[in-house]
Amino acid sequence: MKIAVSGKGGVGKTTLSSLLARYWARNGYRVLAVDADPDANLGSALGIETAGIVPVAKMEDLITERTGLRPGTVGGFFKMNPKVDDLPEALGREKDGVRLLIMGTVKKGGGGCICPESVLLKALVSHLVLYEKDLVIMDMEAGIEHLGRGTAQGVNRLLIVVEPGRRSIETAAKVRELTKDIGLHKVAAVGSKVRNSEEEAFLHRSLDGIPLIGILPFSEEIARADLESRPPSLDDPQIHKAIAEIAAALESEAS
Amino acid sequence: MKIAVSGKGGVGKTTLSSLLARYWARNGYRVLAVDADPDANLGSALGIETAGIVPVAKMEDLITERTGLRPGTVGGFFKMNPKVDDLPEALGREKDGVRLLIMGTVKKGGGGCICPESVLLKALVSHLVLYEKDLVIMDMEAGIEHLGRGTAQGVNRLLIVVEPGRRSIETAAKVRELTKDIGLHKVAAVGSKVRNSEEEAFLHRSLDGIPLIGILPFSEEIARADLESRPPSLDDPQIHKAIAEIAAALESEAS
Repeated sequence: MKIAVSGKGGVGKTTLSSLLARYWARNGYRVLAVDADPDANLGSALGIETAGIVPVAKMEDLITERTGLRPGTVGGFFKMNPKVDDLPEALGREKDGVRLLIMGTVKKGGGGCICPESVLLKALVSHLVLYEKDLVIMDMEAGIEHLGRGTAQGVNRLLIVVEPGRRSIETAAKVRELTKDIGLHKVAAVGSKVRNSEEEAFLHRSLDGIPLIGILPFSEEIARADLESRPPSLDDPQIHKAIAEIAAALESEAS
Repeated sequence: MKIAVSGKGGVGKTTLSSLLARYWARNGYRVLAVDADPDANLGSALGIETAGIVPVAKMEDLITERTGLRPGTVGGFFKMNPKVDDLPEALGREKDGVRLLIMGTVKKGGGGCICPESVLLKALVSHLVLYEKDLVIMDMEAGIEHLGRGTAQGVNRLLIVVEPGRRSIETAAKVRELTKDIGLHKVAAVGSKVRNSEEEAFLHRSLDGIPLIGILPFSEEIARADLESRPPSLDDPQIHKAIAEIAAALESEAS
């Protein structure tokens, strides 16, 4: 299963991605967690030190050589059977069964956009062949531009994180529309920061056909963890229950 | 004064931008509010219907003709005295003294990035000549990629919105670093969703030299307004006081 996690800025994409990654790793999966947000912070949510990790963006020669992607072309030409499975090991950093891969960030103001980085990452994720108990989770950039780039084109399901508020629902609707263009049809929503049953009902009512497969409630532990710069505890009963339910829903219809 | 409002996703950039725009318009300013986020929602925060507004992205011929920007070039050649002051009138929609301009959004999944749109918007904002009591407020895309593109290069001050949490502070530090590369030196922070004096002290302690010029406290009215799809009330005493203080701080050192 290759999952991309999308949604409006600040709804909790990184928190959900990191908790799912750690939950599955605890349950015997080999998890590749990909930070596809140039304003990257999946590392701190996972408790993985990112200094020294070579970002995908810096490995252009290696990835283009392996995938047959010609540098400077968007889309480009792909080899049918490239050897890319060892690349995450070469590029990422592993902790407790989760290997973190970083797309790359904005190095200089006025230096340009991150389109080339997105193309490399898309090529890499598309070509990864997964074995049983292998999982890829990509934490996407806030908003919808990554869908213009098709960065998530290599995944087979998209989670949209929504919070009880009109604007995150509006973003979810736009995300769903745009995924159709890139041929990504398995789309589901997860509610975040939900404080009561009224807010949960609001999400059910507003999602307009996007299936809501789980709820990560508002959590003092998650808020405290952010203030203290540490990953939230998976042993917090409320968090553990929510993540186990979301994971089970995803596994039950895994392709 | 031309202001760009930046910060991590979900911290409250659009809310702050819209409240400042409406506050200044009430006080006799002519305000141009620019939605520079492809996941756009400044219109709903201002209570301005966006259907039918021609996005800047669609006016390429007009803007390149006026600014001398050659299509297809990044950076390009600019005329010294272009006539662009009437463009916001032609393109935007006005309500209660605030005119809304929209950069443009992602029209198709896999359709590409929004770099060309960013270049057009930068050209337009750079060339606008402001008279006394004219103001431009740009609501930027979440995160830091817009700084790679230099979309905010035409403004003369940058506000970074931060909430009490380590990750929005990390984004603020990255934003500040990248602004140096695009020659934008007037940078200040505004705290958002602050619930108590402990959280305010956290911001003061964490901002590492970025001046904190105001605080927009956590507000039930703002949360309710989002759920109800309406602009928050400027007459809410807590909101009004906070926005008046932030506006005064900006005016007192206006260039």
